[in-house]
Amino acid sequence: MTDSVVCQDHGRVRVIKINRPQALNSMNNSVFGGIRDALADAESNDSIAVAIVTGEGRAFSAGQDLQEMQDGLSNSEGGDHQFPSMLKQLTEFKKPLVAAVNGLGVGIGMTFLAHCDLVFMSSDARLKTPFPQLGLAPEAGSSYTFATRMGWQNAAYVLMSGRWFSAQECLEMGLVWKVCEPEDLMDKALEVSQELAVNPIPSLIATKELLMAPGRPEKAWAAHKRENGAYAKLLGAPANTEAVAAFIEKREPDFSSIEGI
Amino acid sequence: MTDSVVCQDHGRVRVIKINRPQALNSMNNSVFGGIRDALADAESNDSIAVAIVTGEGRAFSAGQDLQEMQDGLSNSEGGDHQFPSMLKQLTEFKKPLVAAVNGLGVGIGMTFLAHCDLVFMSSDARLKTPFPQLGLAPEAGSSYTFATRMGWQNAAYVLMSGRWFSAQECLEMGLVWKVCEPEDLMDKALEVSQELAVNPIPSLIATKELLMAPGRPEKAWAAHKRENGAYAKLLGAPANTEAVAAFIEKREPDFSSIEGI
Amino acid sequence: MTDSVVCQDHGRVRVIKINRPQALNSMNNSVFGGIRDALADAESNDSIAVAIVTGEGRAFSAGQDLQEMQDGLSNSEGGDHQFPSMLKQLTEFKKPLVAAVNGLGVGIGMTFLAHCDLVFMSSDARLKTPFPQLGLAPEAGSSYTFATRMGWQNAAYVLMSGRWFSAQECLEMGLVWKVCEPEDLMDKALEVSQELAVNPIPSLIATKELLMAPGRPEKAWAAHKRENGAYAKLLGAPANTEAVAAFIEKREPDFSSIEGI
Repeated sequence: MTDSVVCQDHGRVRVIKINRPQALNSMNNSVFGGIRDALADAESNDSIAVAIVTGEGRAFSAGQDLQEMQDGLSNSEGGDHQFPSMLKQLTEFKKPLVAAVNGLGVGIGMTFLAHCDLVFMSSDARLKTPFPQLGLAPEAGSSYTFATRMGWQNAAYVLMSGRWFSAQECLEMGLVWKVCEPEDLMDKALEVSQELAVNPIPSLIATKELLMAPGRPEKAWAAHKRENGAYAKLLGAPANTEAVAAFIEKREPDFSSIEGI
Repeated sequence: MTDSVVCQDHGRVRVIKINRPQALNSMNNSVFGGIRDALADAESNDSIAVAIVTGEGRAFSAGQDLQEMQDGLSNSEGGDHQFPSMLKQLTEFKKPLVAAVNGLGVGIGMTFLAHCDLVFMSSDARLKTPFPQLGLAPEAGSSYTFATRMGWQNAAYVLMSGRWFSAQECLEMGLVWKVCEPEDLMDKALEVSQELAVNPIPSLIATKELLMAPGRPEKAWAAHKRENGAYAKLLGAPANTEAVAAFIEKREPDFSSIEGI
Repeated sequence: MTDSVVCQDHGRVRVIKINRPQALNSMNNSVFGGIRDALADAESNDSIAVAIVTGEGRAFSAGQDLQEMQDGLSNSEGGDHQFPSMLKQLTEFKKPLVAAVNGLGVGIGMTFLAHCDLVFMSSDARLKTPFPQLGLAPEAGSSYTFATRMGWQNAAYVLMSGRWFSAQECLEMGLVWKVCEPEDLMDKALEVSQELAVNPIPSLIATKELLMAPGRPEKAWAAHKRENGAYAKLLGAPANTEAVAAFIEKREPDFSSIEGI
């Protein structure tokens, strides 16, 4: 585990903190590997009942590291990229998993949440999945998970608009379970996690496994595989090329001339 | 395409309007075929990003044309009836599909909506599926789609009661995404559609396809096939016969003597 | 049918009442068998359209009889225990099924509700599934049904915390359809049931069957079978042993020394 992800135990609750605040906790290979290893360790540790994932500083996570995304690695499973193995560990995590969204979340900083069992969010945080603005498409299984969490209409609007959503909107849509004042966020997430953690760990594990047994991990992973196919087609295509050019030239992208069925 | 369905483009957004106001936009073969062809054309047109379906006049749609329903064609796939091919096109439509419910919707005028990605509804409109009052059962895949949109309890109540639901009720149950003042309905539906339509069309298509990939079209179509089986059994049976007689005699039907398991 | 379950008809609506108030309607073999037989009879009776399940006295049901649970029978399908056959009948009931939750519900007194089509609840009632506090895990298919009724996050919290939930909370989470003042509960449940029951019984049956056809009964039953496996592992294990000891010694259980993955 690298220091881009740090852990601290509160009794039987482990807090896993993304610790790359200088980059708004954007996820590079080091962060992906760190989260994966921290989850695996919490899972196999006999005295940990519940894990909380949060971020250091003013962001939860600004999303995938753009440099690595440009390298075309982020959604492939080739090479030594750590995203797929992190996602697999996340989808299959066998203990209660809580998220405490302390600040902005972009891309994987939002899609990550739909794999958690309880999501707490700071009232001043906001989230978005700007996949269409990048000429891309949903990732991290969100094409499956978002509709199960938010219903079809909200999932479609979130993923097709790519705009920002406030904590209150995320609560009303069903992605988020509780909105807290910023200064209360960790206290509240810890309080509820402790409420679960006093229960016997074997019962918590059995409950999580039974909840997942109808197929959440497999369906999310199948969505991820389909999403990989869409990325392979869209990465480097005209819309994505225009999005990257606009980003470099610090202007709004113009997709009006990009047609296609 | 017939003039019982008319289209108008607003930039990359195509408005498809059911245009049979003298019959409260009830759907006969001409309307079914017109919607199917309009959707197919919007889908294959490289410069259309989003489609909106709405109705001309004071109704969204009063449902299937009763004359044709009595002919026993409306839910069969035999003959030259256009309902099945319209429904197939609707369930598989590959671009964002918005509904703007401008007035009352009955039967297919309500079940149509659960195949759309975003549903806007006028605050003075209302919807119902009077299938039990006709001695019939759910159609257009609603026995599958309604529970996914509204949850089991609301879906069961809507389909088993057959009563009218206000726009506010439809919003609270989850069938409808936004309720608007009547005079704001098309502006609001167009505004959100334009917000999606500035994004690259290939990304919008990929997003819709990925959202559908877990099986919505196939599951809705399978429900439609099962519903056909129920119709075949119920059409012309005692309850349906009493419903038709009551309709012709302009009285309330009396099902109290109709038993059966 | 035993007198631990009593029935009364109101026109085409049958009220099935759990009648063991001296034991807070906790379910022993007599109650399980009585509910099963009452449901089967309502189903096969040509003049019954809708069934309502409620409880006599101040409880809906305090859950499985603890004595029988200790005998290890309650979730097995061996021996002559009536729970599995009651659950099978419940999951497959072919007519509209309404619950009127007149008082507290514990364990099966809460999980039962997720198999009903409409759930009315008295504003002063409350519900809980204290499976983790007993060192056990979800039962009666709740590891599947709860997420479909309440969404993943609420289902996880309910099943992992095992705490009490008020009627208002159950309404907001989606388990309950309407909350009523205690004195209005049966009137309201009957009123809505009568609204459904005026419709032709064959249409109601066809609607229920079509709603179930995507797989609710099979998925709930498959969850029940998986839950049996978890029970077999957890019953008599250290956490369950401590829970039973604490119950007998009238103290809070202490699971802090019980580890395990």
